[in-house]
Amino acid sequence: MKRPATRTFGILTSGGDCPGLNAAIRGVTKAAYWRYGMSIIGISHGYRGLIEGDARLLHPRDFDGILTRGGTILGTSREKPFKPDPGEKDSEAGSRKVEAIIENYHKLHLDCLVVLGGNGTHKTAYLLQQAGLNVIGLPKTIDNDIWGTDVTFGFHSAVDIATEAIDRLHSTAHAHNRVMVIEVMGHKAGWLALYAGIAGGGDIILIPEIPYDLAHIVHHLQTRQQRGKEFSIVVVAEGALSREESLMSKEERKKRRKKNRFPTKGYEVAHLIQEATGMETRVTVLGYLQRGGTPSPYDRLLATRFGTAAAELLYRGDYGKMVALRDGEVVAIPLGEVAEKLKTVPPDHPLIDTARAVGTCFGDGV
Amino acid sequence: MKRPATRTFGILTSGGDCPGLNAAIRGVTKAAYWRYGMSIIGISHGYRGLIEGDARLLHPRDFDGILTRGGTILGTSREKPFKPDPGEKDSEAGSRKVEAIIENYHKLHLDCLVVLGGNGTHKTAYLLQQAGLNVIGLPKTIDNDIWGTDVTFGFHSAVDIATEAIDRLHSTAHAHNRVMVIEVMGHKAGWLALYAGIAGGGDIILIPEIPYDLAHIVHHLQTRQQRGKEFSIVVVAEGALSREESLMSKEERKKRRKKNRFPTKGYEVAHLIQEATGMETRVTVLGYLQRGGTPSPYDRLLATRFGTAAAELLYRGDYGKMVALRDGEVVAIPLGEVAEKLKTVPPDHPLIDTARAVGTCFGDGV
Amino acid sequence: MKRPATRTFGILTSGGDCPGLNAAIRGVTKAAYWRYGMSIIGISHGYRGLIEGDARLLHPRDFDGILTRGGTILGTSREKPFKPDPGEKDSEAGSRKVEAIIENYHKLHLDCLVVLGGNGTHKTAYLLQQAGLNVIGLPKTIDNDIWGTDVTFGFHSAVDIATEAIDRLHSTAHAHNRVMVIEVMGHKAGWLALYAGIAGGGDIILIPEIPYDLAHIVHHLQTRQQRGKEFSIVVVAEGALSREESLMSKEERKKRRKKNRFPTKGYEVAHLIQEATGMETRVTVLGYLQRGGTPSPYDRLLATRFGTAAAELLYRGDYGKMVALRDGEVVAIPLGEVAEKLKTVPPDHPLIDTARAVGTCFGDGV
Amino acid sequence: MKRPATRTFGILTSGGDCPGLNAAIRGVTKAAYWRYGMSIIGISHGYRGLIEGDARLLHPRDFDGILTRGGTILGTSREKPFKPDPGEKDSEAGSRKVEAIIENYHKLHLDCLVVLGGNGTHKTAYLLQQAGLNVIGLPKTIDNDIWGTDVTFGFHSAVDIATEAIDRLHSTAHAHNRVMVIEVMGHKAGWLALYAGIAGGGDIILIPEIPYDLAHIVHHLQTRQQRGKEFSIVVVAEGALSREESLMSKEERKKRRKKNRFPTKGYEVAHLIQEATGMETRVTVLGYLQRGGTPSPYDRLLATRFGTAAAELLYRGDYGKMVALRDGEVVAIPLGEVAEKLKTVPPDHPLIDTARAVGTCFGDGV
Repeated sequence: MKRPATRTFGILTSGGDCPGLNAAIRGVTKAAYWRYGMSIIGISHGYRGLIEGDARLLHPRDFDGILTRGGTILGTSREKPFKPDPGEKDSEAGSRKVEAIIENYHKLHLDCLVVLGGNGTHKTAYLLQQAGLNVIGLPKTIDNDIWGTDVTFGFHSAVDIATEAIDRLHSTAHAHNRVMVIEVMGHKAGWLALYAGIAGGGDIILIPEIPYDLAHIVHHLQTRQQRGKEFSIVVVAEGALSREESLMSKEERKKRRKKNRFPTKGYEVAHLIQEATGMETRVTVLGYLQRGGTPSPYDRLLATRFGTAAAELLYRGDYGKMVALRDGEVVAIPLGEVAEKLKTVPPDHPLIDTARAVGTCFGDGV
Repeated sequence: MKRPATRTFGILTSGGDCPGLNAAIRGVTKAAYWRYGMSIIGISHGYRGLIEGDARLLHPRDFDGILTRGGTILGTSREKPFKPDPGEKDSEAGSRKVEAIIENYHKLHLDCLVVLGGNGTHKTAYLLQQAGLNVIGLPKTIDNDIWGTDVTFGFHSAVDIATEAIDRLHSTAHAHNRVMVIEVMGHKAGWLALYAGIAGGGDIILIPEIPYDLAHIVHHLQTRQQRGKEFSIVVVAEGALSREESLMSKEERKKRRKKNRFPTKGYEVAHLIQEATGMETRVTVLGYLQRGGTPSPYDRLLATRFGTAAAELLYRGDYGKMVALRDGEVVAIPLGEVAEKLKTVPPDHPLIDTARAVGTCFGDGV
Repeated sequence: MKRPATRTFGILTSGGDCPGLNAAIRGVTKAAYWRYGMSIIGISHGYRGLIEGDARLLHPRDFDGILTRGGTILGTSREKPFKPDPGEKDSEAGSRKVEAIIENYHKLHLDCLVVLGGNGTHKTAYLLQQAGLNVIGLPKTIDNDIWGTDVTFGFHSAVDIATEAIDRLHSTAHAHNRVMVIEVMGHKAGWLALYAGIAGGGDIILIPEIPYDLAHIVHHLQTRQQRGKEFSIVVVAEGALSREESLMSKEERKKRRKKNRFPTKGYEVAHLIQEATGMETRVTVLGYLQRGGTPSPYDRLLATRFGTAAAELLYRGDYGKMVALRDGEVVAIPLGEVAEKLKTVPPDHPLIDTARAVGTCFGDGV
Repeated sequence: MKRPATRTFGILTSGGDCPGLNAAIRGVTKAAYWRYGMSIIGISHGYRGLIEGDARLLHPRDFDGILTRGGTILGTSREKPFKPDPGEKDSEAGSRKVEAIIENYHKLHLDCLVVLGGNGTHKTAYLLQQAGLNVIGLPKTIDNDIWGTDVTFGFHSAVDIATEAIDRLHSTAHAHNRVMVIEVMGHKAGWLALYAGIAGGGDIILIPEIPYDLAHIVHHLQTRQQRGKEFSIVVVAEGALSREESLMSKEERKKRRKKNRFPTKGYEVAHLIQEATGMETRVTVLGYLQRGGTPSPYDRLLATRFGTAAAELLYRGDYGKMVALRDGEVVAIPLGEVAEKLKTVPPDHPLIDTARAVGTCFGDGV
């Protein structure tokens, strides 16, 4: 393999942190340095670091031992450079930030910018590409909702954590004859609730893609009771919607929520179940625990695979792409195809039928 | 060893479930059956089962494979037979329940009742003993707040779970430069927060026994920032009190809390920190996750030890006692010494100085 | 959905146990009973139970709580009914056993036999099908070497366990500046070594499919040393072969092994490395630890999916098939296509290039 | 608190690595630096680093994030400076090394040397103290065999790992109706086998302190079989001895072992059981897995406690001591009391009776 004239790339992580970021960083940088002889510029705290010029030359030894570590050694932020800051009238600040990014990109003599992030990150990546920069994206998120890839790294680690939590609640539910409601992440996509719900043996799974009726939930719990199962586990995605809510506009939903006192969806579901059935019901919100800790072996493998594939794209100068997994193969898809889309659970996804077959209820009366 | 005329004992688990209950049940029953030839009556769902006569003869094979399981195969409840039900004017119901217990105790031909539980359970046990029953208690609780024993089973499993949660939050805190507040159980005793806080490397630990001032917390966070530590972990016992609150009556505190909108103490602390420091602050409430799952090896050992010691008390007819660990040895202490007391963290406990020595702040300005 | 005239199926687990067997049993039986109204006959200890008529009618409640449990509640054995017992001259015993199986199949009024197992199990299943029985297979094995499916359940749990072990060895290797050799399962297929090797950051991975030269291994270790890495992790599949061995006949290899004193391949590799490099080298054989314990969420999902798919095949009367995963979808493939084949790691598998890209050596000088 | 004139201490880790070393290092250094204003010299790879002068000034920030990490950031070695190297006629090399240590101790202007290690380390520490150096010791070892302290850090982490391994073997044992032998560390002391054996529900536990007879083991396994328990778990300390062996001299034992082909004690026990009972028996040697990985919360607490106590000894100039835990309190005991002693399991240790009470056999016919 003939080596190209030495290239330099910047690398940053953006959006919520998730397991596997460091493994992916390691994959990109090890392959890019040792295999292709490139130079690595590490950018701190996502796009914010690129705006502020917070960047430095790195050596593979800076990535020693990070394969197993949670978080991101580069730091991250939720900075969205194309979005005006709250309170600003127009996009002036936005353009100022984008200009700073472009300026720093050139000052740092980057041939390409490698970004690791979720939907927001890739939207920005696409806009930067249109603004003339070379960009390569890697799909990370515990939500698994990035369009174009079968799976994102971080997702399976979160599934592991949520499943372990459900396992723990099982013993408490059983000991006390209780309904235990567990709320997991997923505003618009129910992947995490679906996977962890099946893996944890959840009796009811509520996801944003399948609106639920309380009546069906109640019926399912009572049928279980009649069969001698005095406890139940209910797995709720934070963005789950009742049929009623699903017919409302976003504004109406917001208003309704303000009126109710439930901090989150899990609390609401727990309250309604207890009221309707008289069963003792408790709620657990998993929250930030889903993001942290060492990545699972699956995610280390996937992140390493994505990372080395990104290095190859760098080498080939094949910019403007996001690496993705499709049918077991790593491919590269144009950023333009990814931006502004969301991968939600299709109602006919085979896992939904799998779950129903073992007796799980989605609150929709099927 | 000469075997006594066969004895029969009832066994029940009462109060919140916690890891190690099954291990303790196994310890009592295996030793009582095989070593001492006793008969075992399993009572369902705590004192409620004894009131309702929900009990059956068990064989050691019913306890196969339970050493590692969370929860309790006997089921539990928070039934307090001596307490009138809400709405009842006097203790009529209470006496009715107690009478039912005494009646069933004799109907089942019990020589002794073995109860596994926390403070409430042992208070009831003491009252039953005074009412003429033979009772032996085993101290379980994740709070470690039972007077008379150095440690309860369930505690170290909860410490493990809470510490693992703190470990996970560390990576998120670090990646985002955030203050992560984690609320753990402990209404009146801060053992769990103290142990998990030190084991997890918490920067600030707030426990009921040491009233905190926000000013000291803020100062500590800012000092860390000046030393380049942009993130911090704050471990809060659910019953932590500010100095102000610590001077209030229980009623005043309740009123104050109603006025504020914070669902729990962790939320309040997080809100105040963010407001006072401007640092991005997030809260995680560990909740029921602390109760569930397989007991840690430490708790399996301790529960087995307590269980076999209880069997020996049964054999010797040494009733009216709770088994306990003191300076590494299992001893038996009179129920009367345990009831109505609470073991909280003494302000001069050596672990508090240990924590301070590695830089942990308790919010008290020391 | 119209229910068929009630069907009855037998279910057995055969071959080495692995995580996910119980989850798959639960999937088949729950779906078959509740969705399709079938009757379930549980057969003990694999084909041996069918030979001996060790079987009984089961109810879904017999499968309560088994989703998370390792092992198999049905028990297993390595009985191969078509193979004569050692010492027998011809296949008389074989035919006797097969006749007993056929007889018991009819005595139990089975409409189909569901077998959960690996390559040997499916070979037998195919022969039984040819002998006139209806059979459906589910692919389990930690080796992932069953032809026709992208992945088997049990594999990812074993990857998790092996990776965790490698993580542990890392700290010891680092503290002592040692070469740590870890031997994992895989006689003919190197999937487990490959996956765990990458996920654990192994520096050298030796698998049966890529013959190794000691010289390349030594060179790689010394290069690492020159870069300041004083320790290394070597992941060895138990069936790894040196280039020399790969050119020998099976008999020659056996003879050679007898002459050497190494209990297993890992010991040999460790010895040769220490001798050739002078580096302190230690070996760990993971052994049975790879089979046990609770299945990973991934395997619970996959096993549940395979189980419910098998129930659907039962319902449709679509016999003579093994359920399989291909490109993310569950399909059914004829037993005849599976039997006698083995799925090994193709030398051009993308993960091998991924591993090389992050600096892993396969001992082949590439 | 009045600060002393700034002191400087060197710190090293020696002997086999174990979980909690980094936590203890962090405890000493954080407390010594922030609380007492001392200077820290980190010495690489145990006493070898002190011989070679491999040392450097450290700052608390060098210890950031190490609380949870396995291994030791200082590196370790098994260097015993007072022992002549193999092949040397007299102790010339020994004295040369000791002289180098003394020379470097003064060159580095150390006021004290803090050593973290096991029995060998503390023996050396005592000799160095007698040679005029100030030394403070911290007891680490997974074997828990250091005289003078109730427990060492590293021990409970190893118990956790070994127990988890036993849990895994349980499912395999059960699925196959097998006897599973697991060998854990412990040449002279059986603490680890005893603790993990009870916590894991081992049916037979063999430790060096209680010589075993095969006949009793066989009897116990057969009794279990008669009660319908077709599988058993046998936990063997690597230094377990049969009654016959216990009566031999060390030389005789060595000779006998050479004659037999068993690589380790676990293999021998497994072989003899299978031969004597006809039960299928398998062996697992846990090996280096017991040393690695993140320390358990218990060990992090204990190591932190020992570390900060050592810092206080440094501050008080209270040299020549090892920190220790006695009846829950941290104390300091003279090195001279510790050296040359070994803490083994007393035959009347209460845990042995606990184990017997739940049906565990120690192979001694009690």
